[in-house]
Amino acid sequence: MTPQAVPPPQTSHRPAFSLRGERLIGQEMFRVMDRAQVLERQGHRIYHLELGNPRMAPPAEIVEAAVQALQGRQLGYAPMAGLPELRAALADRYASLTGQAVTAAHVVISPANLLIHQFLDITCNPGERVVLFTPAFPSYWAAAAHLGLEVMPVPLTERDGFHLSPQAVDSAMAARPRAIIVNNANNPTGAVYAPAMLRDLAARCEEAGIWLLSDETYADLTFDRAFRTLASPKAGHVVVISSFSKVLSVPGFRTGYALAHEAVTTKLALSNSTLYSCLPAFTQMGCLAGLSVLDRYAEEVREHGSRLIESCVHLMNQSGTLHCNNPESGFYLFVDIAATGLDDMTFCRRLLEEHHTAVTPGRCFGESYASFIRLATCGHEDDVREGVSRTIAFAQKLGGCRVQAA
Amino acid sequence: MTPQAVPPPQTSHRPAFSLRGERLIGQEMFRVMDRAQVLERQGHRIYHLELGNPRMAPPAEIVEAAVQALQGRQLGYAPMAGLPELRAALADRYASLTGQAVTAAHVVISPANLLIHQFLDITCNPGERVVLFTPAFPSYWAAAAHLGLEVMPVPLTERDGFHLSPQAVDSAMAARPRAIIVNNANNPTGAVYAPAMLRDLAARCEEAGIWLLSDETYADLTFDRAFRTLASPKAGHVVVISSFSKVLSVPGFRTGYALAHEAVTTKLALSNSTLYSCLPAFTQMGCLAGLSVLDRYAEEVREHGSRLIESCVHLMNQSGTLHCNNPESGFYLFVDIAATGLDDMTFCRRLLEEHHTAVTPGRCFGESYASFIRLATCGHEDDVREGVSRTIAFAQKLGGCRVQAA
Repeated sequence: MTPQAVPPPQTSHRPAFSLRGERLIGQEMFRVMDRAQVLERQGHRIYHLELGNPRMAPPAEIVEAAVQALQGRQLGYAPMAGLPELRAALADRYASLTGQAVTAAHVVISPANLLIHQFLDITCNPGERVVLFTPAFPSYWAAAAHLGLEVMPVPLTERDGFHLSPQAVDSAMAARPRAIIVNNANNPTGAVYAPAMLRDLAARCEEAGIWLLSDETYADLTFDRAFRTLASPKAGHVVVISSFSKVLSVPGFRTGYALAHEAVTTKLALSNSTLYSCLPAFTQMGCLAGLSVLDRYAEEVREHGSRLIESCVHLMNQSGTLHCNNPESGFYLFVDIAATGLDDMTFCRRLLEEHHTAVTPGRCFGESYASFIRLATCGHEDDVREGVSRTIAFAQKLGGCRVQAA
Repeated sequence: MTPQAVPPPQTSHRPAFSLRGERLIGQEMFRVMDRAQVLERQGHRIYHLELGNPRMAPPAEIVEAAVQALQGRQLGYAPMAGLPELRAALADRYASLTGQAVTAAHVVISPANLLIHQFLDITCNPGERVVLFTPAFPSYWAAAAHLGLEVMPVPLTERDGFHLSPQAVDSAMAARPRAIIVNNANNPTGAVYAPAMLRDLAARCEEAGIWLLSDETYADLTFDRAFRTLASPKAGHVVVISSFSKVLSVPGFRTGYALAHEAVTTKLALSNSTLYSCLPAFTQMGCLAGLSVLDRYAEEVREHGSRLIESCVHLMNQSGTLHCNNPESGFYLFVDIAATGLDDMTFCRRLLEEHHTAVTPGRCFGESYASFIRLATCGHEDDVREGVSRTIAFAQKLGGCRVQAA
């Protein structure tokens, strides 16, 4: 009663993939992680700073609720738009944050990384233009490339701390794109944009009928200022996404959500159903429990994270070779390595192979960032400190002294 | 430090979706489930036969391993191609089933429903042709529609028990498609195709450079004959997919896998990374534990399932109004309701609203099946028996006597 072999047919052709298949680029940091794990299986101790993979213990409530759901046999299919209870709880949260009438119908549950793809998929036709403010999260590039979109990068200025500027907003609008993605708080720079600038961007997109994706995954990790969400279900073209991965330290739960006009959430639910049917119920039950303690827990993450990142920034900027801005949110350092004389790919490869420290090349955030690397400081504190120290030591060994901008 | 409202911009345009967005059709059975759950929240007792959502207790090992992984804080990102241990275990299983050299490199982990989409995405360009032997699982239609492919249905004959025939294989090849999907054992008909026919189909596809997806999700649930997998990693164009959902009664784990040439699995891993980064580690740890008891557990499922389905078929065919073939695998009944005088959509809607029994309309499996419905018999036995009995009673009340085929 078990499968048996059918003799293999002979291969007579080299497989030819579709254009979309050829355009898959994935996420470089997962390739770095794969390579790092190969080195680990060879017995090496690796310092992981390549992925925003939080190692802080998540709220006990999440794990307990997920375990309870598993043991309670919640093992069947769930609704395609997500668990009604989780959608309703998120609606309540955003209603109270925004003072608007947000209901469960404005919320759809899906992995946040997939939601980037789903957003571009339902809004943009092949060949149409999408604006990214750069440096920009690799998944935006990967999704746009896969879907055959034309990416127009609008670079933000390092000297301005990579903040969104009126000029950048003007450039984005002038490009007459089909969609714009804004990532605030930002990965990789940690910049938090001025509310007035975002308000202007959203209003102009809505006015012009341009789709706007506001990726607010790091919203709740903003260190010292009130973060303003763009969530506004009445606005037909503004889609907010976020994730439980970072703020609750459960990236492995693969659960995020979108807030948008009901016409959009209906479409996204249909996309869920078409692509993968539904998400597990037990991970969603866990996130529901996590949501009830999110504010308290996020405070702990910010408190711990901001102290750690501040000391890492200090060390970098004292190194004489490396430089980075002060992040205002999250746990990434976008580090200028120009003075080392190495490009990002070579620097990262040698740092991993010779010094067992995994970081992400800058060009994953846009091709003009080949003199940057990204470090994630959300791992075990000892790992982070040792990884940062090895990165600095390697950079200093390469020599080269950073020329301060005038 | 929590998000605050940005005043909502005014909506000035009705959102316009992309062509792909407009082509999303989802899966009808999830809409049926959503409606059924609305009725449940209103206090009604609903008999669920709409989804292949097994309610048998899964092997204790799966839940225990998943719980252990959760409590052991395996909550971070996992490799994009899936957990190496799970890939290796699947490779061992298929190596021993096929006698071929199958390694972890030939295996990629992803939800099986998504793998259908990923397969078509990486192999077919918009406008290219894909052949489905019909009746065919709704996700094939939904994925092909979303990707803008031309679907050519090759109907199998009810009188032949919907088996694959040499004529059907000839028709498929003559259509010169870019890809063919074969679903064996079949959902919804329960037919298990002759090994020689499958061997011929695979060899001809490989020879002609036509992509072949062999969906073997119900393979291990074949009642009384050895099932032969088409897995053959040397064949560059043959991709086998399967799922843990049905055979281990854990659809909520959302975990399946593909077996293929390394060029294909590499591409699928890149697709995983681009779309959703990775799957949870703890669900994969659960499936790994489940795999070690799969043969023993599948025997129980088959034993229980075949007895139950046999008695349901008997009742149907004794009803004087409904008719279905004897399934050879799985837990679906594809029931001819022509004699009731109602089309499938009306029959299903009234059966749910008036008799609280949820089933799936036949046209989801191809537009020419509007005189069929699909019942899933993998739920709680009492539910299944009551649901079947209500279906028969409703059909009989509608009157009409089935005219036996000569």
